[in-house]
Amino acid sequence: MTSKIRLYVKHNLGTGQTVSLNRKQAHYLFTVMRRKPHDEILIFNGRDGEWKAEILNTKKNTEELTCVKKIRSAKLLPDLWLLFAPIKRNRTEFIVEKATELGASRIIPVKTEFTNLASIRLERLVVYAIEAVEQCGGISVPEITQIQALNKILTQWPSNRHLMFCDEKEVPKRANFSTMQRGPWAILIGPEGGFSNAERAQIKSLLHSYPFSLGPRILRADTAAVAAIALWQQALGEWE
Amino acid sequence: MTSKIRLYVKHNLGTGQTVSLNRKQAHYLFTVMRRKPHDEILIFNGRDGEWKAEILNTKKNTEELTCVKKIRSAKLLPDLWLLFAPIKRNRTEFIVEKATELGASRIIPVKTEFTNLASIRLERLVVYAIEAVEQCGGISVPEITQIQALNKILTQWPSNRHLMFCDEKEVPKRANFSTMQRGPWAILIGPEGGFSNAERAQIKSLLHSYPFSLGPRILRADTAAVAAIALWQQALGEWE
Repeated sequence: MTSKIRLYVKHNLGTGQTVSLNRKQAHYLFTVMRRKPHDEILIFNGRDGEWKAEILNTKKNTEELTCVKKIRSAKLLPDLWLLFAPIKRNRTEFIVEKATELGASRIIPVKTEFTNLASIRLERLVVYAIEAVEQCGGISVPEITQIQALNKILTQWPSNRHLMFCDEKEVPKRANFSTMQRGPWAILIGPEGGFSNAERAQIKSLLHSYPFSLGPRILRADTAAVAAIALWQQALGEWE
Repeated sequence: MTSKIRLYVKHNLGTGQTVSLNRKQAHYLFTVMRRKPHDEILIFNGRDGEWKAEILNTKKNTEELTCVKKIRSAKLLPDLWLLFAPIKRNRTEFIVEKATELGASRIIPVKTEFTNLASIRLERLVVYAIEAVEQCGGISVPEITQIQALNKILTQWPSNRHLMFCDEKEVPKRANFSTMQRGPWAILIGPEGGFSNAERAQIKSLLHSYPFSLGPRILRADTAAVAAIALWQQALGEWE
């Protein structure tokens, strides 16, 4: 009765490795899902691939699994950053969930001149990302960073990293992905109030910055993030 | 002080046409946004384009606008249907909001063999769509239909309508949009439990059915809807 239960754990994984569960995982597995000793689930830690694991002990405070067999090897996410200005909390959580499902490797909340929200709840966002990986069948968890000032990031921008700059002021036109190189990329989604002129100039001054239209309407930031990652993945990413 | 206030109204619009507001619109305009007589806003009805309108009267129960000038002509949405199996209520609302922002012209909730939810709150979904059009600067409101049985729709499928069949069982590969024709299209997003074998066979038997992968992970239905519409719009739709 191996079902699709997948859990993220922090431990190293390897044949015979014992993995203890935290209280929340034990509650989910034994109380909610009613799993019993000798049942099997899938576990991953973001480094050692995906493992089939057998439940050893369900006694309180000693809930343990043991790794049985590696099912899938670790696989790096494509080198895609998502930069976005945090918005209302539920939409920020939503962006993290969606960017994780779609396979961004690093999620960077940025503070722009016209961003109102100056802080995020990083630990909570990490929980959202992990739950999304468990759900979508991924084996790597994206990194989520603390909020950073956009102008600072741009000042230190790696010269080889391309930027898909989703700019609502851009005239809608079909992007020509065939002219764009593979390699390290980032997607930048603007804040609801748009970018300042100074920001726009700084973005466009980057060596590999591509202004990009997401159509004739003004998309919400969460819609724009999902749309942009999907387009990038389809054209330049891992969908092949 | 024309600001970005945009309201959907049901009345016909034309020069000098008077438009009365409903209670909710009046509350929003006068109490929340503190607009006054002679202020201007933008209105649209989904048929007559977008109009600049002036506030005539703010007295209770006689709140009226008058059309001043047409700003944009009506523009049809691309002939794109979105078929999806409704899920949890907030995610269904989300799909409607996002499909509207991205420009689907008809949104069709479908009941599949493995769909749990058998009813939707259509009026509420229409409100979501209208609010999304007001917000995103669109001038056409997508049609939302009552929930329909998928096998019935497929039986009556128009022979000229192409179908982008988002199938999580499809092996990830880059779609070759250049081989696909423009014209009437639909996107079909599966339910969380997947399609039945009978459904899958019926879908694939359609004349213009294209199985389509949305990458190596299993996307939630709402993520899949946004991703698929964005890809279609970019390749075959109105982003040009």
